[in-house]
Amino acid sequence: MKLEVVTIGTELLLGLTPDTNAAELGRALAAAGIEVVRHSSVGDRPEAIRAAVAEALDRTGFVITTGGLGPTSDDMTKHAVAELFGKPLQLNEDVLRSLEERFRHLGRPMAATNRTQAEVPEGATVLPNPRGTAPGLWVEERERVVVMLPGVPSEMRGLLAEEVLPRLAARASGMVVRSRTVRTTGIAESALAERVGAIEDDIAPLTLAYLPSVDGVDLRVTAWTIPEAEAERRLAATVAMLRERAAEHCYGEDGTDLAGVVLQQLSSRKTRLAVAESCTGGLLGGRITAIPGSSEVFAGGIVAYDDAVKRGMLDVSAALLKPHGAVSEEVVRAMVAGALRRFGVGAGLAVTGIAGPSGGTPEKPVGTVWLAAAFGQETSALKRIFPGDRAEIRARAAQAALDLLRRLIGETNP
Amino acid sequence: MKLEVVTIGTELLLGLTPDTNAAELGRALAAAGIEVVRHSSVGDRPEAIRAAVAEALDRTGFVITTGGLGPTSDDMTKHAVAELFGKPLQLNEDVLRSLEERFRHLGRPMAATNRTQAEVPEGATVLPNPRGTAPGLWVEERERVVVMLPGVPSEMRGLLAEEVLPRLAARASGMVVRSRTVRTTGIAESALAERVGAIEDDIAPLTLAYLPSVDGVDLRVTAWTIPEAEAERRLAATVAMLRERAAEHCYGEDGTDLAGVVLQQLSSRKTRLAVAESCTGGLLGGRITAIPGSSEVFAGGIVAYDDAVKRGMLDVSAALLKPHGAVSEEVVRAMVAGALRRFGVGAGLAVTGIAGPSGGTPEKPVGTVWLAAAFGQETSALKRIFPGDRAEIRARAAQAALDLLRRLIGETNP
Repeated sequence: MKLEVVTIGTELLLGLTPDTNAAELGRALAAAGIEVVRHSSVGDRPEAIRAAVAEALDRTGFVITTGGLGPTSDDMTKHAVAELFGKPLQLNEDVLRSLEERFRHLGRPMAATNRTQAEVPEGATVLPNPRGTAPGLWVEERERVVVMLPGVPSEMRGLLAEEVLPRLAARASGMVVRSRTVRTTGIAESALAERVGAIEDDIAPLTLAYLPSVDGVDLRVTAWTIPEAEAERRLAATVAMLRERAAEHCYGEDGTDLAGVVLQQLSSRKTRLAVAESCTGGLLGGRITAIPGSSEVFAGGIVAYDDAVKRGMLDVSAALLKPHGAVSEEVVRAMVAGALRRFGVGAGLAVTGIAGPSGGTPEKPVGTVWLAAAFGQETSALKRIFPGDRAEIRARAAQAALDLLRRLIGETNP
Repeated sequence: MKLEVVTIGTELLLGLTPDTNAAELGRALAAAGIEVVRHSSVGDRPEAIRAAVAEALDRTGFVITTGGLGPTSDDMTKHAVAELFGKPLQLNEDVLRSLEERFRHLGRPMAATNRTQAEVPEGATVLPNPRGTAPGLWVEERERVVVMLPGVPSEMRGLLAEEVLPRLAARASGMVVRSRTVRTTGIAESALAERVGAIEDDIAPLTLAYLPSVDGVDLRVTAWTIPEAEAERRLAATVAMLRERAAEHCYGEDGTDLAGVVLQQLSSRKTRLAVAESCTGGLLGGRITAIPGSSEVFAGGIVAYDDAVKRGMLDVSAALLKPHGAVSEEVVRAMVAGALRRFGVGAGLAVTGIAGPSGGTPEKPVGTVWLAAAFGQETSALKRIFPGDRAEIRARAAQAALDLLRRLIGETNP
């Protein structure tokens, strides 16, 4: 089953409000086996709404709209859709009574404008909305369906779960749209594609997408509108193959956070962790402590932003700092050793680099970062030159540091 | 001037990735006086991309796309648009050279698949992308324009600002849609609304919106499609009035980051800063060091996640920790004093709290956070109980800590 989503609101086109409804509908419908083939946003203008809904109906015959159902003059959706179906708007007594009841309950007088919310296109099914004043509306005629939902996210969500998805399930066929993701890091998209190879035909009808971000490259496999058991079986086989080909670059699946993977590795080895950060300035500690329960493994960290702090609190000697500079293998190794010693732990991470925008030199351009990971008796250090702006370089450095420790622990026998 | 935006990526329709590019384009184009009349999202399928772009071109003659320009087989945009214009793809030697140069700079081999990124539709203008491997492409013929931008947000943003907006400005009309924002923190939305009062009619045709977030409540004023000079004049008057009414709760305008405000205060007072963090785990240091040039003021920090670290590295005595617990006024004051002493600086911040999801008690529920700020001889401490999940509580705590120091410095004569 396929449909289109039309989100309505000038604030969406202006980018003043993020369009969370579109993403939420996409997720919920995919989980129910329904493919959203297109999403459009238009402003609060009747002709724009009518055109977008009409075009979407012509393509798929099924449209869900959000927004434009409120009581004020910029709420146009109901009028536009009623006109499209050639239906007049009629006062619905049940809706009016429940509106009056709602205002009585809140102890407020009902404004005259709210009465317009009790008008529905002739023949429409009213979807009761206990969370707000605008009910959902389901208009259906000659295999064309338009479902209108309010734009307030909590109201949209409630109506979707309680009124729309059950009706869609009754029409559905046991088919699902389902995705799984294999997460990789430390390998470029193009190099990963070479390892994975041209598998598109082999995995069809599943599809594969490469999704690069500052965390690495995710491989997302999607099964489109096939029976659930078959989707699960094919997804499992494809994910297993991708994991094998991504090999050591793969650190998990779906929503897995690399910080959580490292904490898990250390927890099972009963080893505690400390960090020494320069250019990331605390982000690495922030990533680690974002994981609930991290206190079991994470002792703490030193943000050694100033070289005097590297000397005084991490015991990095001036004899290293002076000739090699703060961004060097010698210093990053001394930083991680200092963190292990100061915190009395068995695992450590250190980061020092040039996040920019200034501070780069021809030998050490902006983006140059030295990373070190220590586990037991082993320390490994790595230099990377990261692309991107200051925020990206710092985020990439934190992820790369975690990955260095993940690989080091993985290579070490438990 | 009107145009449409088409964002491309199956992950957008599935709701797996929020479509930040659409909102960002909407904001940037509105600021330049250009109206986005429709936004559509389609998946990574050539026929879907071609259809959406063709329909958008028929309506407005001008389309900006994002996404689908990468090196892998799911990147279809260039092919679809080239086909739509009836142009072959040709290898562009300049793009190839800059790609090779980029990989050389990063010290990595260039995969064969990256060569396809140097192919451009015949006659297209290449928009150089120093942040990534996919250049932007501007295809124009017989008053039909398609501008293709990469989907990675930072790359899209850079190309938009440096290549697209200047070209659009050359075509524009003198009318603008412009917004300004007054940033406040430490006051609830309803309390702020009472202070501001019912000014909607007075400021018309400008509009006012309250935008609450973990950073506080932003007041956004917008002027809609009016001449630039009038917009500037009216916005300046309204912003001045809002700043006056928000008074001490206002910390800046537009994109101002509170960390930047505090760094500026300290810089002009020649005072250096150190932090001691427990529940924020490094986020506060991360916020501060996100500001370029922060090293002038910020010495460093200690992430004292473990109570042993609070004792050993911040000299918080067991005689305080034991009776009062780690989340207490006594301990947060000892933490900030320890940070000042250990780093030898004149200003400090400390945070200790219960970010959850576990660890709450009836006396100290999840969300309880003690904050301390020290400047010169003054220390002020504050207890807050923040709503939200772990991530929100931590983000609110970092912001509230910075705000505590901002107010303390503001009250102290320079």
